[in-house]
Amino acid sequence: MIEIGSAVDRVKVGDWVCLPFNIGCGFCENCERGLTGFCLTCNPGTAGAAYGFAGMGPYSGGQAELLRVPYGDFNCLVLPKDTEEKQLDYVMLSDIWPTGWHATELSGLKPGESIVIYGAGPVGLIAAYSAMVKGASQVMVVDRHPDRLKLVEQIGAIPIDDSDEQAVEKVLQQTNGAGADRGCECVGYQCHDHHGRECNHLTMNALVESVRASGGIGVVGVFVPSDPKAPTKLEQSGKMAFDFGKFWFKGQKLGTGQANVKAYNRYLARSIERNRAKPSFLISHELPLSEAPTAYKHFDNRDDGWTKVVLRAA
Amino acid sequence: MIEIGSAVDRVKVGDWVCLPFNIGCGFCENCERGLTGFCLTCNPGTAGAAYGFAGMGPYSGGQAELLRVPYGDFNCLVLPKDTEEKQLDYVMLSDIWPTGWHATELSGLKPGESIVIYGAGPVGLIAAYSAMVKGASQVMVVDRHPDRLKLVEQIGAIPIDDSDEQAVEKVLQQTNGAGADRGCECVGYQCHDHHGRECNHLTMNALVESVRASGGIGVVGVFVPSDPKAPTKLEQSGKMAFDFGKFWFKGQKLGTGQANVKAYNRYLARSIERNRAKPSFLISHELPLSEAPTAYKHFDNRDDGWTKVVLRAA
Amino acid sequence: MIEIGSAVDRVKVGDWVCLPFNIGCGFCENCERGLTGFCLTCNPGTAGAAYGFAGMGPYSGGQAELLRVPYGDFNCLVLPKDTEEKQLDYVMLSDIWPTGWHATELSGLKPGESIVIYGAGPVGLIAAYSAMVKGASQVMVVDRHPDRLKLVEQIGAIPIDDSDEQAVEKVLQQTNGAGADRGCECVGYQCHDHHGRECNHLTMNALVESVRASGGIGVVGVFVPSDPKAPTKLEQSGKMAFDFGKFWFKGQKLGTGQANVKAYNRYLARSIERNRAKPSFLISHELPLSEAPTAYKHFDNRDDGWTKVVLRAA
Amino acid sequence: MIEIGSAVDRVKVGDWVCLPFNIGCGFCENCERGLTGFCLTCNPGTAGAAYGFAGMGPYSGGQAELLRVPYGDFNCLVLPKDTEEKQLDYVMLSDIWPTGWHATELSGLKPGESIVIYGAGPVGLIAAYSAMVKGASQVMVVDRHPDRLKLVEQIGAIPIDDSDEQAVEKVLQQTNGAGADRGCECVGYQCHDHHGRECNHLTMNALVESVRASGGIGVVGVFVPSDPKAPTKLEQSGKMAFDFGKFWFKGQKLGTGQANVKAYNRYLARSIERNRAKPSFLISHELPLSEAPTAYKHFDNRDDGWTKVVLRAA
Repeated sequence: MIEIGSAVDRVKVGDWVCLPFNIGCGFCENCERGLTGFCLTCNPGTAGAAYGFAGMGPYSGGQAELLRVPYGDFNCLVLPKDTEEKQLDYVMLSDIWPTGWHATELSGLKPGESIVIYGAGPVGLIAAYSAMVKGASQVMVVDRHPDRLKLVEQIGAIPIDDSDEQAVEKVLQQTNGAGADRGCECVGYQCHDHHGRECNHLTMNALVESVRASGGIGVVGVFVPSDPKAPTKLEQSGKMAFDFGKFWFKGQKLGTGQANVKAYNRYLARSIERNRAKPSFLISHELPLSEAPTAYKHFDNRDDGWTKVVLRAA
Repeated sequence: MIEIGSAVDRVKVGDWVCLPFNIGCGFCENCERGLTGFCLTCNPGTAGAAYGFAGMGPYSGGQAELLRVPYGDFNCLVLPKDTEEKQLDYVMLSDIWPTGWHATELSGLKPGESIVIYGAGPVGLIAAYSAMVKGASQVMVVDRHPDRLKLVEQIGAIPIDDSDEQAVEKVLQQTNGAGADRGCECVGYQCHDHHGRECNHLTMNALVESVRASGGIGVVGVFVPSDPKAPTKLEQSGKMAFDFGKFWFKGQKLGTGQANVKAYNRYLARSIERNRAKPSFLISHELPLSEAPTAYKHFDNRDDGWTKVVLRAA
Repeated sequence: MIEIGSAVDRVKVGDWVCLPFNIGCGFCENCERGLTGFCLTCNPGTAGAAYGFAGMGPYSGGQAELLRVPYGDFNCLVLPKDTEEKQLDYVMLSDIWPTGWHATELSGLKPGESIVIYGAGPVGLIAAYSAMVKGASQVMVVDRHPDRLKLVEQIGAIPIDDSDEQAVEKVLQQTNGAGADRGCECVGYQCHDHHGRECNHLTMNALVESVRASGGIGVVGVFVPSDPKAPTKLEQSGKMAFDFGKFWFKGQKLGTGQANVKAYNRYLARSIERNRAKPSFLISHELPLSEAPTAYKHFDNRDDGWTKVVLRAA
Repeated sequence: MIEIGSAVDRVKVGDWVCLPFNIGCGFCENCERGLTGFCLTCNPGTAGAAYGFAGMGPYSGGQAELLRVPYGDFNCLVLPKDTEEKQLDYVMLSDIWPTGWHATELSGLKPGESIVIYGAGPVGLIAAYSAMVKGASQVMVVDRHPDRLKLVEQIGAIPIDDSDEQAVEKVLQQTNGAGADRGCECVGYQCHDHHGRECNHLTMNALVESVRASGGIGVVGVFVPSDPKAPTKLEQSGKMAFDFGKFWFKGQKLGTGQANVKAYNRYLARSIERNRAKPSFLISHELPLSEAPTAYKHFDNRDDGWTKVVLRAA
C-alpha cells in the first residue's frame, strides 16, 4: 500500500494487501450478506463490479503497476507478516483460488463425498485442490491435455482423459455406476468437442450424466448472455441446449456465478499462513508485466506447461 | 389401516395414516439422508419409486379403494386423533402440499423475502400458500386463468395476470426493478404461450428474468428426459433452450426434482393439528372414485373452478 | 437524517433511517460475516460496540434528540416512502424486533415446529410474534403477569401461567410429554422465583426440562460476567448452576448473545412495508423524551399495562 | 454376518458389516431426520438406545463374540470389498471416529478455521484428526500426558501442554489473543485439576475462555444428570458452575450429545476405502477379547502408550 484516501481507517501505508478481482461497497443489500460479487453500488444498474472486466464498471484492470481501490477498508485483505516470503501463495487469493473454491461450495461438496471437475485449466486444478483440502474422498478431473492431467495426478486427484470422449463412462465406472456426488464446471461457454468445434452445452450435459441423482453442480466457468461469434443462433443469444429433462428427473441442484472473493479469502489466507495449503503449486511461470501479451498468447494456445503465469510489476 | 404385515412394528390396524406418493425403503444411502424421493431400493436401477407413476417401479396408483404399502413402518405417517374431522386437510399431505412446500424450499426462501411463482394450478397455489406460512413478505403468482388468479388473491398473495405476456415486466415493477428474491416453477414441460403452443423453456426463461441476481429458483413442475410429441427436435430429446448465459451472469441457483414427502409431512401435519394451516382451501370438488375419469377431464381442460378434486373410495 | 459526513456516499440528508443499537465498522472479520453485534473495530479490545451500553464503547445512548452515527453508510437502514405513516412499526427495528427474532434464530426454529418462550416482556412477546410469522405450529409463552399473558393470547400464542411454578409440567402436557422443539430465554440473569428471590439458573434449567431431546435453545436475555449484587458467590462471579448433565444427555444445542441487528432489519422492514407484519402491537405508550425516567420506572416495576414505551424527541 | 432375520431385505449372510454403538429404528421422528442417537422406539421413554450402556435400553454390550442387531437393514453399514485388509480402519467407524467427527460438527467448524480440543484421549485425538481431514487451518489439542501430546504432533496438530494449567493463555497466544474459532470438549464430567481433584466445570469454562467471541463449542465428553460420587452437592445433582455470563457475553454457541453414528459412517467409510483417511493410527494394542479386563485397566490408568485397544473375538 503506497497511499490511502482520507476515508480509510484501517489499512495503512506499508501494509501488504491482496485485492479481490471484484469490487464491493460493503453496505448494499448484497455486500452486507457476503455477496460481494454482486455489489449493487459500484456499477449502478448491474449487480457486480470488477477491475478490467467487460460490463463490470469503469475500473481498469488489476494487472498493472498500481491499482486504485474504491472502498479500501472493505476491499483490501491485509496480509500477515510472512507475506513477502509467501507472496506467490497469497497472490492466488485475488481470483483463482477463491474461484476454484467457490466451484466446490456451489456444488455443495461435503467431506467424504466424491466430486468430478470438468476442466484442468488453472481454475479446475485449484477447484480439485480445494476439494482435496476440504476432505473429499474422491476427486476426478476431466481434460484432454497430458500436461494438465499430469498435474491432476500430482495433487492426488484422479485424471480422467477425455481425448476419446468417454469421460462420462469413466466417471460412472469410478463410482459404481452411480455418478459423483458433486460436479464442477470449470470450462465455460467456449467448451468444444475433440474436433475443436465450440458447443456451449458439452460440459453441462456431461455433468448432468456424471453426477448422481440428487447431487449438486457448481458452475464457475463463464457463460455469457450474448455470444455473437457462436456457431449457432441459439448460442449467439446466450442460450444452451441444456438437458433439463434428465437434470430434473435426477433432482439435481445447480449453483452459478462469480466467486464472492471476500467470502473466502480471509480463511484461505490463514491456511497459507499456517502452512496447511500451498496454492502456488499452480504457477508455471513468473514474468515481468511487460511480457503479459506473450504470456496470454501461450496460455490461450494451451501451450504445453503454461498452467498459470504470475506477472511482476517491477 | 386394515391389515399389517408381520414385519410391521409401529403401525396398528385401525390407525389413520397418510401415504407419501413416493416410496422409500428407509435404509438406503438416499433414504437415510431424507431423500426419500430418490430411494435406491424400491425401484432398482433408478433413484426413486412411486405409486402409479411411469418409470417409477411396479406399484399401482394410489387413487384406489385399497393400497398395498411396502416398508409400512417407514412410509406411513400415523395421523392424530382429530383426523376424521380434518381429513380433507390431512389428505393434502400425500403429495400436493409437500410438493408445493418443496418448491419454496428448493428456491431457498427465507422469511421476509419476496417470491414469484409461475403457475396457479394446485401446486402453484399451495406453493404460494406455503410461502405465506413461512413468512415471505411478498408472494406473486403468475397465471392466465381468472378463477385461479382469484384464488391467489384469496390467500393473500398478489395475482400477476400473464394473458398479455407481460408477467416479467409486472414482477420487476412490483420489486423496484430488482426481481423477486426467489422463484418457483410449478408448470412443467408442457408450458405454452398464449396461442397454446407448447414450448418447454417459457417459464424457466421467464424465471431467470423475474428473479434477482444471486436469487434462487425451485422447480417442481415435471420435466422429462424424452418427449416424443413435442413440437421441436430439441424438446423431443428432453432438452431446453435455456437462457444459461443470463442465468450464470446473474449468479442464480436452481434446485429441482420430486418432493421428498417424508421430509415435510410430519411437521405440516402438526400445523394442521394445531390449526395453524388449512390446506383444504384448495379443494373445489369431492367426488366418488368412480367419477375419477370425468374429474381428470375437467381438470385437464382447466374448466372454470376445477382447482383440486378429492376422490372418495367409498 | 439532518447532516452527513464527508465519507458518506449513500445516505442523504432528508432520508428516514433506523439505527441498530449495536455499531459495526463493516469491514472487520466479524462484520464482513454479518456478525455486526461483535464488531472488532468500534470498541477496540472487545467484540461488540453499542450506543449507551456498559462496556460497549464510548458511545452515548440512542434515546436522544440527535444521534452521531459512525460508519453511516454501513449502519443506517434507509427506510421506504411509507415510513412517516408507519414509524411506530419501523422504530421497532432498532432493537426489540431483531432481538426477539434472533432468539428464534438461535433456537434453530423451523416452520411447523413448536417453541416455548420464557418471559413475556417486550422481548419475549416479540420473539413469540416472530415465531408466529415464521410458521411455528405451536408457540407457548411462560410468564406470571396477567396483562402480559393476555397479550400472548392476542397474538395467537399459548399463555403458560407460571405463578404456580408448574410451567415445565404445563409445557410437557401441551407437547405429549416430549417437550417443545425449541426454546427461548427472554428474561436474563435477574430471573427470580415467585418469592422474588433472584436466581440466575431458573429459566435456563426450566428450558432444559421444557425442550425435547435434540432440541435447541436461544438465549437473548442478558447474562453478565460479573454481578456483584447477586445473592450467592457463584452468581456474583457470573457463573450459573446449570443443569449440564441433563442438557448433555438430551443432546440439546444452545445459542447466545446480542442480536446482529443488521442481519435481520432489512428483511423485517420489508415485511412491514408490504403489510405482512405489524410489530407496533407491542407499544403501550408514546411519551415525550422528557418523561423517559417515569416511563422507565413504570416499566421496571412491571406496572400493569406498561409493555413498551416509545419516546418522541420533539 | 452369520445369520439374518426374516424381515431383513438388504444385508446378506457373509457380508462384512460395522455396527453403530447406538441403535435406531429408522422410522421414528428422530431417526427419519438422521438423529439416530436419539431414537424414540428402541428404548421407550428415553430418546436413545445403545449396546451395553447404562440407561440406554436392554441391549448387551458390543464387545462380544456375537451381536444381535435389531432393525438390521437400518443399522448395519455394509462394508466394501477391501474390508478384511483394512478392518482396523473400518472398526473405528462403530464409535470412536464418528464421535470425534461429531465433536467438530457440533462446534460448527469450517475449512480454514482454527480449533482447540480439550482432551487427547482417543476421542480428542480423532476429533483433531477429523479437523485436519476437514481442512482446519490450525488444530490445537490440550492434555497433560506426554505420550498423548506426542501423538497430537504426529498427526500434524499442535500439542498444548496443560501440566502447568496455562492452557488458556497458550491458546490465546497461538491465536493473536482472539481465541480459537471453535472448540471441542472431549473429556467429560470426570475432568480434574492437576491435583487429581474432579471438578466438572474445568474444561467447559476453559473452553469459554479459549474460544473467540461468536465461536462454537462441541461437547462429546459425557456429562451425566446425576453423579452420586462427585465431590460437591452441585455436581452430585449433575449441575455445573458454568461461566454462563462470559459465555453469553461472547455470544458463543454450544452443541452437545451422543454422535448420530449413521449420519457420518457411510462417508467416513468411503474416505477409508479411497485411501484418504487411516483412523487406525489411533490403535496401540490388538488383544483377544479375553484380555478385555486388563486392557480396560491399563486404559483407565492412562498407562503410557495405551491409546486405543482393539479386541478380537476369535
